[in-house]
Amino acid sequence: MRVAASARAREGVRTPNDDFHDWFGALAERSYTRVERVPLDGLDGWETDPRTGNLRHHTGRFFTVEGLDVRIPGGPVPAWSQPIINQPEIGVLGILVKEFDGVLHCLMQAKVEPGNAGGLQISPTVQATRSNYTGVHGGRPVPYLDLFRDPGPRGPLVDVRQSEQGSAFHHKRNRNMVVEADGEVEVHEGFRWFTLGQLHRLLAERDLVNMDARTVLSCLPFAHAELARELGPPADPFRAALFRSCDPTAGSRHSLGSVLSWITEARTRTEVRAHRVPLAGLPGWHRTRDRVSHESGAFFDVIGVRVEARGREVAGWSQPMIEPHGTGVVAFLTRTLDGVLHVLMHARAEAGYMDVVELAPTVQCTPDSYAYLPESARPRFLDEVERAEPGRIRFQSVLSEEGGRFHHALNRYLIVDTDGGPGARADVPPDDPDYRWMTVHQLVELLRHSHYLNIQARSLVACLQSLLVPEEPAPTTERKVR
Amino acid sequence: MRVAASARAREGVRTPNDDFHDWFGALAERSYTRVERVPLDGLDGWETDPRTGNLRHHTGRFFTVEGLDVRIPGGPVPAWSQPIINQPEIGVLGILVKEFDGVLHCLMQAKVEPGNAGGLQISPTVQATRSNYTGVHGGRPVPYLDLFRDPGPRGPLVDVRQSEQGSAFHHKRNRNMVVEADGEVEVHEGFRWFTLGQLHRLLAERDLVNMDARTVLSCLPFAHAELARELGPPADPFRAALFRSCDPTAGSRHSLGSVLSWITEARTRTEVRAHRVPLAGLPGWHRTRDRVSHESGAFFDVIGVRVEARGREVAGWSQPMIEPHGTGVVAFLTRTLDGVLHVLMHARAEAGYMDVVELAPTVQCTPDSYAYLPESARPRFLDEVERAEPGRIRFQSVLSEEGGRFHHALNRYLIVDTDGGPGARADVPPDDPDYRWMTVHQLVELLRHSHYLNIQARSLVACLQSLLVPEEPAPTTERKVR
Repeated sequence: MRVAASARAREGVRTPNDDFHDWFGALAERSYTRVERVPLDGLDGWETDPRTGNLRHHTGRFFTVEGLDVRIPGGPVPAWSQPIINQPEIGVLGILVKEFDGVLHCLMQAKVEPGNAGGLQISPTVQATRSNYTGVHGGRPVPYLDLFRDPGPRGPLVDVRQSEQGSAFHHKRNRNMVVEADGEVEVHEGFRWFTLGQLHRLLAERDLVNMDARTVLSCLPFAHAELARELGPPADPFRAALFRSCDPTAGSRHSLGSVLSWITEARTRTEVRAHRVPLAGLPGWHRTRDRVSHESGAFFDVIGVRVEARGREVAGWSQPMIEPHGTGVVAFLTRTLDGVLHVLMHARAEAGYMDVVELAPTVQCTPDSYAYLPESARPRFLDEVERAEPGRIRFQSVLSEEGGRFHHALNRYLIVDTDGGPGARADVPPDDPDYRWMTVHQLVELLRHSHYLNIQARSLVACLQSLLVPEEPAPTTERKVR
Repeated sequence: MRVAASARAREGVRTPNDDFHDWFGALAERSYTRVERVPLDGLDGWETDPRTGNLRHHTGRFFTVEGLDVRIPGGPVPAWSQPIINQPEIGVLGILVKEFDGVLHCLMQAKVEPGNAGGLQISPTVQATRSNYTGVHGGRPVPYLDLFRDPGPRGPLVDVRQSEQGSAFHHKRNRNMVVEADGEVEVHEGFRWFTLGQLHRLLAERDLVNMDARTVLSCLPFAHAELARELGPPADPFRAALFRSCDPTAGSRHSLGSVLSWITEARTRTEVRAHRVPLAGLPGWHRTRDRVSHESGAFFDVIGVRVEARGREVAGWSQPMIEPHGTGVVAFLTRTLDGVLHVLMHARAEAGYMDVVELAPTVQCTPDSYAYLPESARPRFLDEVERAEPGRIRFQSVLSEEGGRFHHALNRYLIVDTDGGPGARADVPPDDPDYRWMTVHQLVELLRHSHYLNIQARSLVACLQSLLVPEEPAPTTERKVR
């Protein structure tokens, strides 16, 4: 399967670039969605537990909104309370791939989620909760799901459970899968074949490729090395260092064994005590008719929405959502060490993680929130990102988090090169307890396993992948209907 | 560091084989331990929670004995209740290594634990609970622990958290470490340098190398490949296939990606609902003066012991322990596929695991218990192990589980070759949901990460390692004092 050809192709064998926006615009017109805010007590099918104040669906399925009491002794904020989404079921995020004329294509879906700021987004072939495939919500069957339930004798190309936002979810994970289609595939309305090159170009567009697509793309195991081999070393030093970083035989500041030991140390040293508690009476949080919010006005609110949709499996429903305050910053700082690009990873504890700490981007925060937190909680390296000269910003795009649970959760994703020049102040000693410079091939190796890279880091790995291919004129970026 | 030389050497550079039993026997004489059964109400420092009936230390430290309500829908036994040890702290199991004349040596300790059937056992350099290093039990400092707290700039050779028995512990893990000493090391009383070859020979002796030593040895990352390279292909076909199995470039029935997908599928499909509940009133279990036991008389009892010890950090203490009924069987079936030895691994759910399922030996059970369980619960492949012709049994030794929590928990560890002949009936289809044939290098790769191989499988990996080296006359097996 020629992944490199897939990344390089100016357009797909099956789908030209030119008509993408026509296709997408036409779908956007047809897939009408109306999202209306409703009081938390007026959510059809949802109820407030009289004892705990938790929000739950009357079937007991989907998810609940509860309280969480968090203690991280020695952390920047050692104790707090917050609402949390409890959704223990493991869903499937799957991309179906197929070779046409030797070029890998991904079957993607243009899909609306109620929390999407722009409506339609490019999504994986399948986004299915366990409720989806047991059919508990009474909707239509999810197209292509059977191909992921039974991926055939060769098995999936990618199949790994990865975490989602540990700041909003208690132990939420999804199964990230890539499956190669064996025979003919009928392309249903709303679906389209894309090459990796086409998806990478769309990643740079504002709020277009959804979170679920980004995490699955980041787990594709073969893309980096094969691309590096087929495309040859580029002239641009940054991109040349990125190519070398994808080569598993290239050097790295720390061996993988040493990185694993660093993670073990962080997970042993850090103590996260997170206990689910009633949402009612959660210290610092107040419920009004329309929302649960923090007394400071910061962080996020729990809101209620009523959704009417066309082009979805269910025509109308209500649900609680998380509405963050302010746009976040999610950034990789990079540096070339001995000719090999390294990324500065942060061992980050979040209350909802399965295993204490995951590797996060160098910076991951919502700057607005820091007005309400102690100065000591201000993220390291945020200055390096906010003050970066434009020439150092190798990637920048505003992308959103999952629109099925988050309402308009936008983050500015950046990749900032710190090499040389006056802005290159960011560095850490080799034994810094919280940060390590790592190569791309080390990240790729860890992505074969669960719970090493957090969801924000996985998004940025997909963005980093997109920089492997030489820049070329972007397709018309005007989108007819959003 | 010459691991192979370490495995090959008939005796250590520092310590001849001949005087091992003198050394060990003399220590056994001096390290007097008396273990006396006492009523559960008469455990100094321990109390029964009046509300829950749980057993706990008055300081709130060490561990508690609680109840667990377990549901595994679709499992061989879909629901049960049992007592469980809750010990969430992560301790350290560490082996200090050092090269003498180019030969790797491991500093091991002859250590008594109250549950050891034979008294002294060969243990890692350090076995420290978190209570040990915070000094909560008021004992003497643990020798060499500082070398594991701060392993120096090169970092540890092994550093990975691994699970312990999921049938007895709730989420218990230890940090397995191997650290290379930088300078001179003073050898304290009770400690001694061993080559890997010496340890491997001792592994075949009954109840001598303790569980903690076995798990740390199994995680040594370089042993297999280097041994295979230096020792060259042996004449014996089984050992030749084992050598090839250690070579990461050798073929395997399933790719590592396919194995990881199988584990993901098992962990997604299997639902383990385990809830801690009060020990008092646990269905099917009764507390008498001396024990908590199952109404059938099967499985295990919770007992109380009072320990008087010399050669330990604390001279006397009391504690609850788990006393299993009957000797267990823990076995790998092996088969040579395309010239490469494969081991049949079982994706096994245990109630106390962090992550649903771990890879277990082909057979892991206590045959006596099956009198009390439905016929459908009888383990697959137990017959193949119990009826194996003596020539097929490549390894057999009775070894015990951790003597700090288990009282006389003995298991018969076996490696049974199923190749050719009438006994070679064991096979599984390639898509069997519960079993996979795997190579040694695949097991070694997974051992870099947490929670893939269970404690019994790790013990057997250490035993498998010991078969790499040609058999030679064992040292005198008579042990002067046990």
